[in-house]
Amino acid sequence: MPDLSARLRGVIPPLVTPLDETGEVDRDSLRRLIGYQLEAGVHGVFLGGSSGEIALLDDGQRRTVVEIAVAEVAGAVPVLVGAIDTGTRRVVEQARRAAALGADAAVVTAPFYVRPHADEIVEHFRLVHAAVDLPLVAYDIPPAVSVRLTPDVVEAIAEAGFVVGLKDSSGDLSNFRENLRRLPEFPILTGSELFADLAVRLGAAGIVPGLGNVDPHGYLRLYQAASAGRLAEATAEQDRLAQLFTITEVADRGRIGSTAGALGAFKAAMAARGMIAHGRTNQPLLPLDEAEIKTIAEILREVGLDAAIVAG
Amino acid sequence: MPDLSARLRGVIPPLVTPLDETGEVDRDSLRRLIGYQLEAGVHGVFLGGSSGEIALLDDGQRRTVVEIAVAEVAGAVPVLVGAIDTGTRRVVEQARRAAALGADAAVVTAPFYVRPHADEIVEHFRLVHAAVDLPLVAYDIPPAVSVRLTPDVVEAIAEAGFVVGLKDSSGDLSNFRENLRRLPEFPILTGSELFADLAVRLGAAGIVPGLGNVDPHGYLRLYQAASAGRLAEATAEQDRLAQLFTITEVADRGRIGSTAGALGAFKAAMAARGMIAHGRTNQPLLPLDEAEIKTIAEILREVGLDAAIVAG
Amino acid sequence: MPDLSARLRGVIPPLVTPLDETGEVDRDSLRRLIGYQLEAGVHGVFLGGSSGEIALLDDGQRRTVVEIAVAEVAGAVPVLVGAIDTGTRRVVEQARRAAALGADAAVVTAPFYVRPHADEIVEHFRLVHAAVDLPLVAYDIPPAVSVRLTPDVVEAIAEAGFVVGLKDSSGDLSNFRENLRRLPEFPILTGSELFADLAVRLGAAGIVPGLGNVDPHGYLRLYQAASAGRLAEATAEQDRLAQLFTITEVADRGRIGSTAGALGAFKAAMAARGMIAHGRTNQPLLPLDEAEIKTIAEILREVGLDAAIVAG
Amino acid sequence: MPDLSARLRGVIPPLVTPLDETGEVDRDSLRRLIGYQLEAGVHGVFLGGSSGEIALLDDGQRRTVVEIAVAEVAGAVPVLVGAIDTGTRRVVEQARRAAALGADAAVVTAPFYVRPHADEIVEHFRLVHAAVDLPLVAYDIPPAVSVRLTPDVVEAIAEAGFVVGLKDSSGDLSNFRENLRRLPEFPILTGSELFADLAVRLGAAGIVPGLGNVDPHGYLRLYQAASAGRLAEATAEQDRLAQLFTITEVADRGRIGSTAGALGAFKAAMAARGMIAHGRTNQPLLPLDEAEIKTIAEILREVGLDAAIVAG
Repeated sequence: MPDLSARLRGVIPPLVTPLDETGEVDRDSLRRLIGYQLEAGVHGVFLGGSSGEIALLDDGQRRTVVEIAVAEVAGAVPVLVGAIDTGTRRVVEQARRAAALGADAAVVTAPFYVRPHADEIVEHFRLVHAAVDLPLVAYDIPPAVSVRLTPDVVEAIAEAGFVVGLKDSSGDLSNFRENLRRLPEFPILTGSELFADLAVRLGAAGIVPGLGNVDPHGYLRLYQAASAGRLAEATAEQDRLAQLFTITEVADRGRIGSTAGALGAFKAAMAARGMIAHGRTNQPLLPLDEAEIKTIAEILREVGLDAAIVAG
Repeated sequence: MPDLSARLRGVIPPLVTPLDETGEVDRDSLRRLIGYQLEAGVHGVFLGGSSGEIALLDDGQRRTVVEIAVAEVAGAVPVLVGAIDTGTRRVVEQARRAAALGADAAVVTAPFYVRPHADEIVEHFRLVHAAVDLPLVAYDIPPAVSVRLTPDVVEAIAEAGFVVGLKDSSGDLSNFRENLRRLPEFPILTGSELFADLAVRLGAAGIVPGLGNVDPHGYLRLYQAASAGRLAEATAEQDRLAQLFTITEVADRGRIGSTAGALGAFKAAMAARGMIAHGRTNQPLLPLDEAEIKTIAEILREVGLDAAIVAG
Repeated sequence: MPDLSARLRGVIPPLVTPLDETGEVDRDSLRRLIGYQLEAGVHGVFLGGSSGEIALLDDGQRRTVVEIAVAEVAGAVPVLVGAIDTGTRRVVEQARRAAALGADAAVVTAPFYVRPHADEIVEHFRLVHAAVDLPLVAYDIPPAVSVRLTPDVVEAIAEAGFVVGLKDSSGDLSNFRENLRRLPEFPILTGSELFADLAVRLGAAGIVPGLGNVDPHGYLRLYQAASAGRLAEATAEQDRLAQLFTITEVADRGRIGSTAGALGAFKAAMAARGMIAHGRTNQPLLPLDEAEIKTIAEILREVGLDAAIVAG
Repeated sequence: MPDLSARLRGVIPPLVTPLDETGEVDRDSLRRLIGYQLEAGVHGVFLGGSSGEIALLDDGQRRTVVEIAVAEVAGAVPVLVGAIDTGTRRVVEQARRAAALGADAAVVTAPFYVRPHADEIVEHFRLVHAAVDLPLVAYDIPPAVSVRLTPDVVEAIAEAGFVVGLKDSSGDLSNFRENLRRLPEFPILTGSELFADLAVRLGAAGIVPGLGNVDPHGYLRLYQAASAGRLAEATAEQDRLAQLFTITEVADRGRIGSTAGALGAFKAAMAARGMIAHGRTNQPLLPLDEAEIKTIAEILREVGLDAAIVAG
């Protein structure tokens, strides 16, 4: 099998974690979702990311999710698994579990809760790399961890070989370009739903869009067009996906949080499309209301996603 | 034994986690530290808080720390244990472990990483309370979790009986007073090292000062004076402790982070005083340098803490 | 006349700017307000601060306000005037105008819009001091200018003699104490409505409370009690004023901004008490609605301020 | 003359304000700079923006700058003038002065210092528009004013006709695209130095790059290529300009602020190229040191800008 970094490319959706009515992982829905994504042609899957509600899953749920994904994917594409936790030793534990379950890579953020210095972030990646027998992908997600992986940090950990790729969810295109400029050979994936077309055109190895849960075909069309240099076509698809992305703004932010609003919208749309059985999010996130779910269904229709899928 | 909320009072230091040269919990040092604190007369101990580097401890270290504390304290004072994690289900797991090990209360923050709405924070405390057979203390620490426990949230979870007390580490005295004004009978502990005198005078049930690791006697004198209405005496002690607190600003913030600088300073001072064997902090925090450690020793002398303790 | 710094003490309300129905300065109301404040016994007045909507007043309005205040006060107490602007040269212009109109001191913030370095803030105060023949009071108000006057900056500009006092509106009591600890002889005024009792007890030279517009007698009682060491009495008054301060939270923040909500509440309460003719704020702030104004009137009654004043 | 909104296109550099050794406007350098820019082929000039140190210029300097620009440009291209101030009435005054001096448009930010609600920002633009006989361009610059012009606000003020264009300096490409998506006919200029190629390709009417002071030819090549759909060529130029932009990171941020570091670098590079006589910035910004200026000269050489210009 080729080196992982060569396989860090294309569309790699950060899968949601479907839940049943009791709040446990809905195994059937997760299998159906993975099947649907593979059938659509995704180049990898990412379990246990922010879209997967990783911060809200207990260790048992995390294990279940990875087991199902590894079994269902069966080597067809890389399975990336979030080893997301506050400190080095905890991340090492999570990453080792992912390795033992058959993951192809662990996705690792900066430490959080402890407000680390840039050099402490580099040290974190050095230590996790030394302790874990699994390729690491660095994950820059400042809204969640309140600290950036700056271009200096990314350069340091990439050149030292601590990580084999970067998932950039900073939302900052200038920062993304600076990373590309410094590390032209290093696989950089964008987490942006909204400038994926440009990111690919500029040299992103791939896309990790939460919205890809709802519409992988859209992101695959976008990726193919942008990779082939057909930017106008990619941008037209991007515009359609931007319209779809407005589902994340439907929920009343006076009533529920931004994470609940965005992930609840993804799941509501997926449930409406028949991809998963229920739209519920994990505790303590609060649910969308009926009117909001109806609005989301309308947006789906507007972008041509009204037909329920045939289960994969 | 009286109800816990009646025992949530006085000086309850959030203990550091001493580490040996390999990075494992230094059991002897932890026992010595606890003995020293009890001998000084503290009214409780808090393991696994921010000062205890909770975010950097793996589950094994967390267990060791609590086991030692429960055994060493032997019921003399309440043992509070941090159940600090990103989401509800994870916090429930941590709190149940603390209960099984004999903790008297679990200390719980708002969810983090997921940017919750205020109502989702209330829901979090409701769910943890319902799932765990251990009193909960709410912990407001916005620098670590990037979200506040507002007076509205505190009032909601206190009046519903989800929590039996609050540790307010917001650093915001107006907020603290507003909580006191709304909940005059509810035990509120301040996490402030720097306005503990005033907080007690205003009605704080107690103090949870990280700096109490280094100088519990100082905070006990302050607490006694402030409780007895001798504010000038309390304030004089507070001024001395404020001078001692400057040890947390010694480390060069261009080189190491603020958490490393503060906790490293506490531990360096404790090692200098013979309370623990080593000053090291957990991975990936970087260490103070020799000159910084020397400066800390000078500050100790300036505030009259130059004599090494005799081991408790 | 004694040196200004000796007169920087007591209760110095930052006066609102009353406006008439056309949006111009309501001269009669301003005179009435000043008369009422002097009769109450305030130790100074501060025109053109944040409570005076300084950022929204044009130069003509600023001039009118200062002219009226200087004439009305007639030397009875110091008249402080905000020279609030983005950069050094603009502040110099504002401060010179204040001097020409007879102000006793200019109140100066850090530069804003330009995100200055601490050393650039010190340079700013050095240059304004060198260019203006009027004592300067430094004004720390981070919510408005997005930068702090740290204890290091305050120490530098105080010891160099660039400023004769500090108005600390940081809301951070630890910071306030650190300033007092470093500069025990330097007059520090707190801008806090909510811990004025403690600030005075700790050594604040005085109080500059926006809420003092509405109830100067309350702050004067608090100041007298706290200065005389009667802290319980000061704190009881503080608690009553904290209840009054809830008028600033009445306005729906989904509809108008925080500045509009707080200043609109001050003015609505003052209009209800007959201190000024209209409650309107300056463009583009939006007004409170009828229900909100009614709630404010109820809060006034609850704290014993229902009787309209007899015009001073 | 055609409607201004039709002329809001192309490269419109936000000109620096050259200063002489006494700190006054260096009129000769400003004329030379404008001449050089016109000769290069810029489509407009913007005086009194953030790059023009507007916050640090007094009213006399502002007047001088506009007078020179209007005279020097002599109608060849539009002259945009910043009417940057904290509140509505002050902005109206600034904008009227600009109109009287012959500006073609006033550039207006959200109110600052007062933390306005979105509806108060809309009201601000409504009022300025009603009071000033000059087209307005909205200016979104959150780092300076601490508040965003959200897509909702932009849509409201554009559709109501209060503004004829938008300068988007938010640094947020997703936001920029959302504005384009909602307002396809409305002229949107990007303030980004680093994704100008993409912005133009996506539909930006033009570019307002601070770095265009140093290298207008680069941005003109980029604009021509991007407008003509030659994205690879535009991106190659963008990459070169990104390298040039590293001059803004040369200054030691432990010693001077970010504004001083960026504007000082622009001016140092311009002085090195002979475009202006001196590199100094306005009070209280601190200067670059010799080594930093030397590094900037090296970067100029690396991107092919070593030859001094022949004065325009």
